[in-house]
Formats: sequence, structure tokens, C-alpha cells
Amino acid sequence: MNKWVYLFDELDQAEKHVGKIWDKVLGLLGGKGANLAEMTRIGIPVPPGFTISTEGCNAYVADGKFPDGLWDQVLSAMKTVEERAGKKFGDAENPLLVSCRSGAKFSMPGMMDTVLNIGLNDLSAQGMVKLTGNERFVYDSYRRLIQMFGSVVLGIPDEAFEEALEDHKREKGFKNDTDLTTLDLKDLTEKFKAIVKKVQGSDFPQEPYDQLRLATEAVFKSWNGKRAIDYRRATNISDDLGTAVNIVSMVFGNMGWDSGTGVAFTRDPQTGEKKMFGDYLLNAQGEDVVAGIRNTEKIAKLAKDMPEASKQFHDICAKLEKHYRDMQDVEFTIERGKLWMLQTRNGKRTALSAVKIAVDMANEGLITHEQAILRVTPEQVDSLLHPQFDLATKSTAKKEGRYLASGVNASPGAAVGQVFFDADTTEKKAKEEKLDTIMVRPFTKPDDVHGMLAAKGILTSEGGATSHAAVVARQFGVPCVVGASAFKIDLDHRKMMVNDTTISEGDWISVDGTTGEVFSGKLGLTAPSLDEQTDLLTLLSWADEICAKPDIRKLADGKKTRGLEVWTNADYPKDARRARSYGAVGIGLCRTEHMFFEPERLPIVQRMILAETPEARKAALDELLPSQRSDFEGLFEAMDDYPVIIRLIDPPLHEFLPSPETLLEEVVTMRVKGETKDLKKKEAYLNSVNALHESNPMMGLRGVRLSIYMPEIVEMQIRAIFEAAANMTKKGIRVKPEIMIPLTGTVKELEWVQPRLVAIAKTVMKEKGLEFPYKFGTMIEIPRAAVTAGEIAELAEFFSFGTNDLTQMTFGYSRDDAERNFLVKYVEEGILATNPFQSIDRDGVGKLMRMAVEDGRKARPDLEVGICGEHGGDPASIEFCHMIGQNYVSCSPFRVPVARLAAAQAAVKFRV
Amino acid sequence: MNKWVYLFDELDQAEKHVGKIWDKVLGLLGGKGANLAEMTRIGIPVPPGFTISTEGCNAYVADGKFPDGLWDQVLSAMKTVEERAGKKFGDAENPLLVSCRSGAKFSMPGMMDTVLNIGLNDLSAQGMVKLTGNERFVYDSYRRLIQMFGSVVLGIPDEAFEEALEDHKREKGFKNDTDLTTLDLKDLTEKFKAIVKKVQGSDFPQEPYDQLRLATEAVFKSWNGKRAIDYRRATNISDDLGTAVNIVSMVFGNMGWDSGTGVAFTRDPQTGEKKMFGDYLLNAQGEDVVAGIRNTEKIAKLAKDMPEASKQFHDICAKLEKHYRDMQDVEFTIERGKLWMLQTRNGKRTALSAVKIAVDMANEGLITHEQAILRVTPEQVDSLLHPQFDLATKSTAKKEGRYLASGVNASPGAAVGQVFFDADTTEKKAKEEKLDTIMVRPFTKPDDVHGMLAAKGILTSEGGATSHAAVVARQFGVPCVVGASAFKIDLDHRKMMVNDTTISEGDWISVDGTTGEVFSGKLGLTAPSLDEQTDLLTLLSWADEICAKPDIRKLADGKKTRGLEVWTNADYPKDARRARSYGAVGIGLCRTEHMFFEPERLPIVQRMILAETPEARKAALDELLPSQRSDFEGLFEAMDDYPVIIRLIDPPLHEFLPSPETLLEEVVTMRVKGETKDLKKKEAYLNSVNALHESNPMMGLRGVRLSIYMPEIVEMQIRAIFEAAANMTKKGIRVKPEIMIPLTGTVKELEWVQPRLVAIAKTVMKEKGLEFPYKFGTMIEIPRAAVTAGEIAELAEFFSFGTNDLTQMTFGYSRDDAERNFLVKYVEEGILATNPFQSIDRDGVGKLMRMAVEDGRKARPDLEVGICGEHGGDPASIEFCHMIGQNYVSCSPFRVPVARLAAAQAAVKFRV
Repeated sequence: MNKWVYLFDELDQAEKHVGKIWDKVLGLLGGKGANLAEMTRIGIPVPPGFTISTEGCNAYVADGKFPDGLWDQVLSAMKTVEERAGKKFGDAENPLLVSCRSGAKFSMPGMMDTVLNIGLNDLSAQGMVKLTGNERFVYDSYRRLIQMFGSVVLGIPDEAFEEALEDHKREKGFKNDTDLTTLDLKDLTEKFKAIVKKVQGSDFPQEPYDQLRLATEAVFKSWNGKRAIDYRRATNISDDLGTAVNIVSMVFGNMGWDSGTGVAFTRDPQTGEKKMFGDYLLNAQGEDVVAGIRNTEKIAKLAKDMPEASKQFHDICAKLEKHYRDMQDVEFTIERGKLWMLQTRNGKRTALSAVKIAVDMANEGLITHEQAILRVTPEQVDSLLHPQFDLATKSTAKKEGRYLASGVNASPGAAVGQVFFDADTTEKKAKEEKLDTIMVRPFTKPDDVHGMLAAKGILTSEGGATSHAAVVARQFGVPCVVGASAFKIDLDHRKMMVNDTTISEGDWISVDGTTGEVFSGKLGLTAPSLDEQTDLLTLLSWADEICAKPDIRKLADGKKTRGLEVWTNADYPKDARRARSYGAVGIGLCRTEHMFFEPERLPIVQRMILAETPEARKAALDELLPSQRSDFEGLFEAMDDYPVIIRLIDPPLHEFLPSPETLLEEVVTMRVKGETKDLKKKEAYLNSVNALHESNPMMGLRGVRLSIYMPEIVEMQIRAIFEAAANMTKKGIRVKPEIMIPLTGTVKELEWVQPRLVAIAKTVMKEKGLEFPYKFGTMIEIPRAAVTAGEIAELAEFFSFGTNDLTQMTFGYSRDDAERNFLVKYVEEGILATNPFQSIDRDGVGKLMRMAVEDGRKARPDLEVGICGEHGGDPASIEFCHMIGQNYVSCSPFRVPVARLAAAQAAVKFRV
Repeated sequence: MNKWVYLFDELDQAEKHVGKIWDKVLGLLGGKGANLAEMTRIGIPVPPGFTISTEGCNAYVADGKFPDGLWDQVLSAMKTVEERAGKKFGDAENPLLVSCRSGAKFSMPGMMDTVLNIGLNDLSAQGMVKLTGNERFVYDSYRRLIQMFGSVVLGIPDEAFEEALEDHKREKGFKNDTDLTTLDLKDLTEKFKAIVKKVQGSDFPQEPYDQLRLATEAVFKSWNGKRAIDYRRATNISDDLGTAVNIVSMVFGNMGWDSGTGVAFTRDPQTGEKKMFGDYLLNAQGEDVVAGIRNTEKIAKLAKDMPEASKQFHDICAKLEKHYRDMQDVEFTIERGKLWMLQTRNGKRTALSAVKIAVDMANEGLITHEQAILRVTPEQVDSLLHPQFDLATKSTAKKEGRYLASGVNASPGAAVGQVFFDADTTEKKAKEEKLDTIMVRPFTKPDDVHGMLAAKGILTSEGGATSHAAVVARQFGVPCVVGASAFKIDLDHRKMMVNDTTISEGDWISVDGTTGEVFSGKLGLTAPSLDEQTDLLTLLSWADEICAKPDIRKLADGKKTRGLEVWTNADYPKDARRARSYGAVGIGLCRTEHMFFEPERLPIVQRMILAETPEARKAALDELLPSQRSDFEGLFEAMDDYPVIIRLIDPPLHEFLPSPETLLEEVVTMRVKGETKDLKKKEAYLNSVNALHESNPMMGLRGVRLSIYMPEIVEMQIRAIFEAAANMTKKGIRVKPEIMIPLTGTVKELEWVQPRLVAIAKTVMKEKGLEFPYKFGTMIEIPRAAVTAGEIAELAEFFSFGTNDLTQMTFGYSRDDAERNFLVKYVEEGILATNPFQSIDRDGVGKLMRMAVEDGRKARPDLEVGICGEHGGDPASIEFCHMIGQNYVSCSPFRVPVARLAAAQAAVKFRV
């Protein structure tokens, strides 16, 4: 006979069934049940009860009925609970009441059903009155049971009960539920019973075990309710986990002034401070604490009110923290002086407090540095480095009544701006009038993207975490709240209503994409500095230490090595300096062409491109050389003693020229107007620009192809780089230039171009009379380069994955085009799990990357391998880079701390 | 001591050194030497001689001097030759003369040096006079030796000798060399000696062994002469092969009327007829036969002139054919009644004769069917199916003096057209005036490509087989002759001179890209029919038989299977019928969008694309359905009982719309002119078209992405296909539709779209009340599809490689853009061995293909795999498709016979 039911003191049997792995126990008993059992095991007072396992749920869901033995086991467990509680289920004298709550492996707040006060009926209500001496409370509980049971178990619309309640209040002239007297509640109890009878055709079940059975079935069924399924879809929770059901004897905090109830965090979830944080009420129910009907007391005061229970509570909390080695979020009730713990779980916390708690607990010896690293998410680190609303500001705004509503926190970050209700206006106001804008729409569509990109923040009233707005916003890093359904958007009148407030177009609002909150008006933003965040600095230093362990990782060839280094993508000295201060230990990508776009240089660049003779081209390049050289000098200085990877010119030349459409318009206008002056010249210019036009520029004349087609440009760049390096060497800077050739597809390209460039490098060093170390390497961003990496590594001393292009070519997705049409639909429809431009597609692109690293290292065992695409700052991608044995990731300066943490997490997760 | 020198009867020793593999023997002794030795071995009379091996050459080239022992071995071999010839080198009475000829593994005609008559000096000349009684001949030979030795060995410019000769003739008033008397030649001999002395500072070497040694060194050195290196580059012959040197005792056919010399083919090299074909002259030298000074005799007449020698010669030829099992090209000399064979080699032949000889020899039992298959190149089959000039026409034209000159045969096929000297004019005349044009340029550049594409043929006076013109022409199948330097092109005056002829712009010429010949005027073209070419039909039937053997090929999983089938790419019934008559056994690609481009349908298609509501789109699609259905009906009927793969719509939608540039011009013109009428409408149209614009359409919204984005189109297509199939089934046609989904990159795309389409297919079959077999499959043309083929094969019942796109994405080359800029340079510079759009890049694209086949078959062992890119008709690519285990190749109808041969050749080459 299968065991479906586990008393809270039968955790050992659960472990016998699934093994002593906490994750498996969680899978069997659900989070709530497992923790209640765990508390029971370590001697913490938990009301007697038991858990019906997720296996029971799955069996029920599969067959539509309880599996053999389940109900018998429930009956037997109830006997034990009765004995332990010293009460009897449905008893007229000393009745036992129980709650029936869902509890899945992963918390799904509010998604599934709960029934409280089971066991109340006409008879046991009498018994409860005797026990509590509080008739009003008993009948309030009874009518609530009927309502809850009616709606949850019997599927009677809740409105039926609510209407009856409202009618009764109206008749009596009452405003609040608290106005109801004992008699009113008795009356309502009867009315509610009548509703059940009418809708259901049978009486509200007086038999307590019928109540319990039906409630249990209802909870099982709620696993496959629409709400629950939608939630699982959105949060990637598997459908086959099932939920457990916890049957717990009810305890009451409202049995007099020697009773009470409260919730608490064992440390401050806002700041992380090591101080109990929570509220309680004497002579009250759990609901009262949450509902805010009475003013709660700070948990510190409990020591005065009930010194003994308070001490016990503090001891228990300390014990729980030590036991779970994490900050706990607990619920407790004191019934007639006796403390009962009703729940414990790891507490949710802000980014700030996550870091402090992790560091503190490590320092307290509760957890190791490696565990501390895993306690903070990369997203939390990111949020600590981006502008945000501080808690005080939000708290003040709430007190001022400026909090409007919340939605789904779809894309983190804080935004303050003026509301506009369509993409065109949003973009226009942002671009032309330089306004800070918040784009507000019921939902967004692909043709809204230009507005979303121009906005500081995005707010929608519909859609979830994977809606178009959410996906696009996350992708472009625009703070975004979606599905904030409290907002009623009236596009025709350019306004929106939320509760009693009306927001018109142009009004200011503040949107917190990290929490989902929306406020009216302008909330102050704080831009935190890393230097002041000592706990974060400590945590990151631990991250670096972990990555630096020389044997933490095993490569494909069996050799052991350190974890990832974190480098940065920086084109300018100021970026390099910031990144270095954030912990970057190299530049993984300096895009030299950015230097060509600077206003004073662009005309020279255009002259160079359109030159009709090699001499004219050379002359223009000679003009560019000094500025390129000084660019590089600044970089080398900023990155003293660190490697600096400089990528030779990459983009197609037409990017430096005006658009042919603009020129065509001008030419046609001149022609029609008969303006012959300068027409020929303009036409010739148009022709030159058109000659450089390509049907698919992304796959055209760029990168190394351009260097072979027109070698003069890279020859100038190499000279500039090595002259700069030599000049800096003379100043005592330790330069480590690494020259990166982009878009290589075959080793023959390197064979053609690399020796020519090495020759120039050597010439310059000879001219300058000194030597310094340097490397030549290549981007791996063309699928063919990944496929033939073994050959390429014969010449290339390093690889750097250009995962943007590699993703483009491997999928055949033109990024610009795809993201404004089918890609969003693909993510929405689940054809793509995530946008592959955000996080590396491990099965496709990743397979090519793994191949390239392994084949490359076979040819050149000390091959340096990194990544410089945008994926270099994405935690999931960083983990993958660690797995395939890369040496470093390179990301934007602001992402460096995030990457350091993610790199360490990967090292811990996969440590050998 | 290494053996460097092999007497002609020491073939066994050569085989001992390199093994009994003919290819290795050829590598050691060169083609000429190996065949002389082979003839010696089988008892055919060959003048005594020996070969200095290619190893000797390589050692000499490496060290700049003969390796140890080489010269001693030469001296020793000369002793043997003297004994066998019964003559003595440099003797005054009975002198032995020898020739010193290069002979590499692969024939490099005219690329390396030869010195004849070595051993002649003042003394032996006397001896020769005694031997031959022909003093004039002896001194003519002597002065030729000095000239040849002077220019080849001593590097004296040939002009020095030619001038002396001309001066002498002028003094004497002679016109021809034949006017020179014995005295004149004696005089010239002295004059030539003086030239040597003057330029060289020393006498012409009288010592025969000095002559021999210096000549041998000269031949070795000529291996690295510029001409030879260029030739090797062009023909992909490796530089490290080296050349052998053959030292052969001279025999003379001009020792009286019992002597003679000739050349012959053992079968007719033009027609393949089994009849000796050749010419000879009595009392003459080899040169005389070639030079055409005297009228040669047909070889048949030899039987009358010298019955005994003739019989011996015919016997020898029969023996050689039987021995080599191929048609031989032989040289012979009869010296005083004694027949000597001077050379034999497999004879070059026309395509026609190649086919006939292969079939005849197989029927004669000389070779197997498999060997016959290998005797004909796919290019030869191709040439038999394309319009060409027949030999009679060309022969007549030559007699009429219309042959102008020859160049490099860069792209096969015959073209007749009017000459134009620039790309713009060529294109204009071709497009606007519908003229047949031949574009003539000194050389071509990327911006000439539009002219090349519009031309029937291309002629350049510069460049070689890998020049821009050659590469582009081959790629687009335009007949082309390059490097025809006899043509002096005067672009300024729009004319060209060749010898005495002037061709002006607009004049007609005829260009034979297969042979390199150029004629003035219009030569008649013959378009051969396959039906009449019975030998070719026989050969192709053998090819099919070989491929059909069920165990000829071993797959990656070890299973044995048949060779490739040949299918065809056909969009219309007439193409399908032609392909079927050419032997295609399936349609591998029907491009449904071609049907959308037909003039009467395009407006409906545009209406469909720009529809603003699903209803409007549906209405337009309903209009298109009947015509699509009837298209498919025709195809199914034409391919009764064969599979027909229909690809769902693939191209991006904007391809069906007018260009935005044109619309922009119109809009701007209307705006400037103030034409407000229709402006709004035109602007809206421009906006709609612009909305569909993509930066990189090749990687944009097309293929399955379009089907997911706008499923209505493919839903209509599926209905049309299955209605057509049902209608044809009712008519008794055995339909086998296979639906191909293009541009798949992840199996999730198939999971989304395929069930929807299968549902429609089932609905239609239910409506029609019948069933027929069908398949759903996918193109593999996105690198990610190849990388994740195992997953994709879970759904796809067949794969078809779209190697055009797969090559584009794997290399990241936009085909249109690349081919007009860097790709040509890449091929010229050797960065790419061949244009990867012409022949599959085995290392990169091919590696992905192999992976896809293997992973796909693991998931679905009976997975049908084919190819429908243009590579499907390229023999090297077909070989690769065979190697990786594909089931079929699909190519254009005209290439089907070529592909059948290539498939069989691959099967033979890799047979298990």
C-alpha cells in the first residue's frame, strides 16, 4: 500500500521514500508541509497536523478520485491529530477544527485554494462557544466556512454570499462588517446555508469528514485551475509537480489577552539588518494583522506584553535561522499563552538586504562564502547599480497617497516621466522635445517598438511577464510594468483612471519596474555608487576569490583550471576606467569604428571611403592616424597591465555615409525644380553611395572582408595601435595589446591579412626601438568559423565569440528585422524559450561555441577564449561560457559586477 | 645510395621503390617516362633510354645541385644505352644522339623545356653525315641544337638567333627556311656558335656530356619557371611533384624512303569510331608532320607504303589499347624499316567520342560498365546537351578563313552574337533591343557583371581561367573565352583587331567557350537531343544501374544502401516532363511562389499582402486558390508515380511589391510639383511598402516565419495541393505529394505549423472521400537546423538541403552582394578554393550537412535526405552528397543527365 499521508513527525518516512535530499522532500510534501514537518522534527511547537503528498494529488488528478488507501490514511492521521490536540473533530464539547491548505513545491501565492475552520457545524459551533466564550467569533467563523466552502469546494459564485451580506448590512443600516452583531452573524450563517441548499440542491454538509474530504478534493482540483496553469506557464513551473495538502489543527490567537498572533522576519528584509522585523496583535486572528483593521505592534514590544512567549519566540527564530542558515519569514500564534509556529520559509528580501544578509551570515559562520555567493541573484546586483527609487521615497509617496496600483514587474529599473498614450507621440515628445516619457498602452504590438525604445518607462494594463511589452522592454532594458489592470485606459480621451485618480496625457508618473509599483508624480531617483556598498564589495571580492581558484573547473580535456575572468567592452578611456573600478581585468572589445563616427572625423572618413585613387585614400587615412593613436594611448593608460583587445574596423562602409533615400529625395527635388546647379555633383554622390549599397549588409563587405578588399584602413589602424602602445611603454605603462580580426570565416583570410599586419607591428616596434607583448586573434561570429575553429586556431592566438552575429547567422535572423516582427511572436508562442539575442541559445549557437572551444584548444592548448557579444553580461549566458571552458566574459562596464557574481555562481554550481 | 635513374627496362625497380600502384609510378617517372618503360616491359620497340626521376628533380630544386650519385647513374645508364643502340655518344663514326625532355606526372603541354639532338658537335656531325648521307639535315639539326641549347640552357634570348637567321636569309634573298642550302646551314651553325661565345663568354660546349648535364639541369630548373608555376596554379597541380627527365636515343624518320614518322589515335578522337586516326610522312621528321610543310598521308595509306611496318604498327596499337584499356595517342618513327614507338598516352577526345569509346570498349569487354562510367566527365555530358558548334561547321568556317584566334576556354558552351565593348551597352542592347550580344572587354570588373549576365557570350583579351570574367561566367553558365591575347581591343574606337581582321561594334562573332575558339560571323548552333544520342543513353542507363545496386554504399551507421537518385527542380509541368525524359525520378523542389509572380496573379498577390483585415486577405487568397490548384494538378500528372516535393511560400513579401525607391521618386515628384490628387494614396502605398522593408531580407520574415506570422497563405497552399492531389487521384494518377517547409531553424516552428497543415490536408482528403500517401518535411538551410537536426527529424519526415541559403548563413555571405565584390577577389587570391555557391564547401557547410544527416537518421532511421540548392547539379557536390549518405540530389532539368553520371561516378569511386 502506498503511503500518501505523512504526519508532521513522519519526516523520516518521507525521506525514506524519496531520499534525504531536501529538494526531493519539498517535491513530495510541498514547501509548507515540508517546513512544518522539519520544524516538528527539531522540536519547535507546531500544531498537530499532516500532509497529503503531491503523489496523492497526481494520482487524484490522473484518475479523478482518491487513490486506494489515501482516505483511510487521512482518517487514521486525524485520529492521531485528535489525540495530540486533545480535541475531537466535530465534537460538541471540545471540537477540533482544521485548516486545509495547498502547498506546492514552489510557492504559487494565491493561485490555489484554502479552506479554514473545517469541522465547524451546528454542533461543534456550540462547543467552540464553550471553548472560546466568544459567540460572535464562532459564528463569524462558521459563516466564513460556509462561504469559503461554498465558493471553493462547491463552486458557488462568491457574489451570491457577498450579496446576501450586503443586503443584510443595508437592511440594518450597517457600513462595516465589524458592525455585525452575534445575532446578525447567526442570521447570516442560516442565510448562507440556504444559499448552499438552493444552488447546490443539498444541505451544507454537517458531517466534518465530508467537509474535509470535499475540501481536499477541491485543493487537488485547483492545481489544474486556469489561474494556476497560467501562473505555472509564466514562471516555468512544471505541470507534473502537483500540490500537497496540509491539514493542520486550527489554533486561535483571539482567545483572550493571553493570546495573539503575528508575522515576522528574522532579519530586516529591507536593509538586511540583524534585527527581528515584524508585527503582532494580542487577542487577534492572523487576518487582523494583515488586514490592518487594528494598529499592529512592532515585534519588539512582545517582550513587554508576553515576556515568556517572546523569549521562546526569539529562541525559536534563532534556532530556525541557524537550522535553515537563512533569514526566515515566520507566522506564529499564541493561544492562551502557548506559542505555536504556523509557518516558516526563507524570507523574500530586497537586493540591498540580500547582499547584507549573505555577507553577515558568512561572517557569522552560518554559511560559507560560496553559499553567500548563491544567496544573491545577478539581477539584484544589477538593481543596486542602476538608478532606483529608495524605500524612504516610496514610503513617503505612499503616505502622501501617491501610490496608484501595482502590476507585473516586467523589466527592472525605475522610471519617471510624462505619460503618452501612443508610440508615435511618445517617440516624438522624447526625440523632438527631449521630454522624459512613459508610454502607456493597454498592451503593445510590434509597431509600438519605436515608442518603447524612446520611452524612459512602459506601463500596460494588460498582459503578463511574457507579453510583447514585457519581452521587448526587458530586451532593451526599459523599466516596465505590465498587466496593471487597475488602470482603466481611455485612449479616445487620452487619459486613464485608477481608483479615484485620473491621469491625463502629459501628467507625470513614476514606474518601478523592479517591484511593479506605479506612483503619481515624480519620485526621486538615487543612483548608487559601488564604492559605498561595502557589503556588495565584500561579496564581489569573495566572488573573485572563488573564480580565481586554480582547480575549480574541469575542462573538456580533463585539465583543471580557474573560473571566468570578467573583462569589459569599452571604446573610450572613461569607460575603461569605470569598468576597472567595477572590477574588470581587461578590455575584451574596443570597437575602433566608433572613433570614426565622431563629428570632426566623419568628413575625413567619408573622403577616405569615396577616394578614387589609393593615394587619395592614403592621404585621408594619414589624417585619421593621429586621432586613432591618441584614442588608443588613453585606453592603454587606463588599462595599465591589463590586456586590451582592439577590434579592427568591422562595419560596412555605407554606415559612414548618408542614406541613399535622403540623397534620392534631394536629387529628385532638384530635378523636378530644374535646379541644375550642383545637380551633377549630387547625382554623382548618390551614385557613389548607391554603389556601396548592399541587399544584406549584415552579410556583406565588412570585417576582415573589408580589410582584404581595402587593406589601407587596417594598415593605418595597426600603425596607430602599435605607435600608441610604444609611446605608452615609454611612459612606463605596461601595455598588452591584442589585435582582433572580425568576421573571419576561413583560416585563409587570416593567412592573407595577419602576416601583413604583423609586419607593420614589427616595423613600428623597430622604429620605436622597443618591444612589448602582443597577440593576434579573431572573432568567432560566423558559423563557419566555429565549424572550422581547429584550423583557425593554428593562426589565431585568441578567440572572442561575437554572439550577436553568431546568433544572427546561426538562426538566420536579421536582428533589426526579426525583433520588430516575428521574434516577439516566437517568444510569445513559446517557439523560442527566450530571445536568443538576450541569452545564448545553448542547443544551437551554444553547440557551435562548444565545438569551437574544443577544436580550437586541440590545435592550440593555450588558446585564450572569451565572449564580447551582449550575452557577455547575461547571467545564464555567463554560466554557459563557464561550462564550455572560456577564459573570460566581456560586458559593458555597468554589467561587470553582475558578471563577476554570475561567474562565481557558475564556478560554485559546477565546481569539481 | 638512392636510385635516381631508371632505364626503360627497370620499371620493376621503380615499382619496388614506390609500390605497384600506377599513380605512384607516374609520380616517380612522370607520364612520358612511365609509359615508355611500360611499353618496354610489354615488348614494344622503344628507343633505348632512361628516366631521371622526379625525386632527382626535387632534390636538385631543393639544393641547387644534383644529389649524390645522380650523375654517376646517368653516365652508367648512357653506357647501357650506347650498348643497346650500338652507337657511341659524340662518336665521329656512329654517333648516338639523345633527346632530353621533361615529363611530369600530369601533362603540362609546352610549359617546360626540351632539348633535342644532344650529342651533336663538330666531330659527331661528321659521323651523322656518314650515317645519314644527308649533310643538310645534319647541319640543320646542329644549328637547331645550338639555338635550342642557347636559349633553353644558357638563357640567351631566342631573338639573337632568329635575327641572325633572318639577316642571313635577307642577304641571300631567301624567303623560307627551306630555301637554305647545306652551306647556308653550315654558315649559320658557325654564326650561332659565335652568338653563344659572344653572349656567354665561352664556346658552345663540344663535350656531349656537358651538353647532357646542362640540358638536364635546365629541364629541372624549368619546373620552377614562371610559365610552369602559373600553369600549375591554374590547373591545381601541386608544386612539390617535380618533373622527371627522359633521355632517349634519337631515331630518325628521314633516313630515306624506308623511314618515316607519324602520330595517331587508336580510335577517332572526334567521333569515337573504332578506326585508326592519324597522319604520317615518309622520309621525314616528327616536326614535319606537325608543321604542315608537306601534305601528310592518312595513316591507312601506310599499309601500301610499308606493309610490314604498318602491320607491326597496327598490332602494336591494338596491343596498347588492350593493355591500357583506353584509346591511345601514339607517336612513332620508322628508321630504315624499323618501327620505334616514341610515346603513348591516353588520347584526348571530344565529348561525343568519349561517350562512344567508353560504351564501345565496355561492349568489347575491354572495360567494365563501372570503368566506362569513369571515362566520361560530367562536363562532357553537359556539353552534349547544350547548344554547340558542330565540328563540320567549325571546319568549314576555318576553311573560309573565319577562324580568328583562340583563348582560354573559361566557361563552356557556344555563343553567337553582336560585339559590344562595355557592360552598359551590352545590357541595353540585349534588354531593350533583344539583340544577341557578346560582351568584349580587355578584362572584366565587378561592375561589369550586369553586362555579362545579359550577354550570350563573353570574350576577353586578358586574364586566365581564374580571372573575374572566367569565374563569373562559369558561375552564371555564360560561354566565355578569356585571355585571347591575339585580339587588340581599341575601346576608344569601339573596335578590335585580330591578325588582319577588324571587328567593329555590332559585328557578329561566334565564341566557343568549350574549346576557346573565336570565329567571325555567325556559326550555326546545334541543339542536340538526348533521344538521338544512343551511346549516351546507354551510358546513363549503366549509371542508373550502378546507383541502383542496393549494397553499393555504406552509410555512417554501417548499413549498406543504394547510390543517389536524381530528382529535379521544376515549377511547371513542361519542366517536369522534360526532366522526366532526362531521367529524373522525382521533383525535389517546386517553388510555389513562382506561381505568384505571373502577371495576371501578381495584383491579387499584392492585394493579399497589403490587406488590412484577415477577411480581405482571405478573399484574395480564395481568388488565388484555383490557379495554384491547377498548377499542382499539372505537376502531379507529369510526375505520375513519382514523389513531388512542394515547398511552401518562401520569399519575403516585399519581393512581390514595387521597389520603395521608385515609389519615393514618384511621391517626391508629386510633392514638388504640388500634385495633390492621389498623393495621399501614393504616400500610403509607399508607407505600406516601407513597412515591409527589411535591413537584411535574406535573414528576415520569410519561409516558415512568414507561415507562422501570416498562416493564411500556407493554409491556402495546402488546400490547393491536396485538392489537386485528390482530383488527380480520381483520374488515376498516382500522386505522392511531399510538403516542404522552408527556413526551419528550430523544431518548435514545425511543432507550431505542421499540425495545423496536416489538419487541413486531412480535412481535404475527407471532403474528397479518398486517401493518398503524403509526407511533411523541411528544408535544412539554416545553420541551426543542421546543428539541431536530431530534434527536427522527430517531426520532419524528410530533409532537403537548401545549400544556397545554408552557404550564405554558414559563411555569412550575402550572395548578391558578395559575388559583386569580395567573393571574386577571394577566389582570385586563393582565399576560397572555389566559389562556395558553385561547389559545396566540404569543410564548413559540408561538415554541418554531414552532422545533420547523421543526427537526423539517428532520430528517424528512414529519413529521406536530398538537396535542392544549385549544388544539386554540380558533380563535386553530388559526390559529397553521396559520401554523406543522402538519398537523392535534385537539380535543374538540363543537369539531370549530368547528375546521373556524377552520381554513378561517386558510387563507383566510393563503392564498398
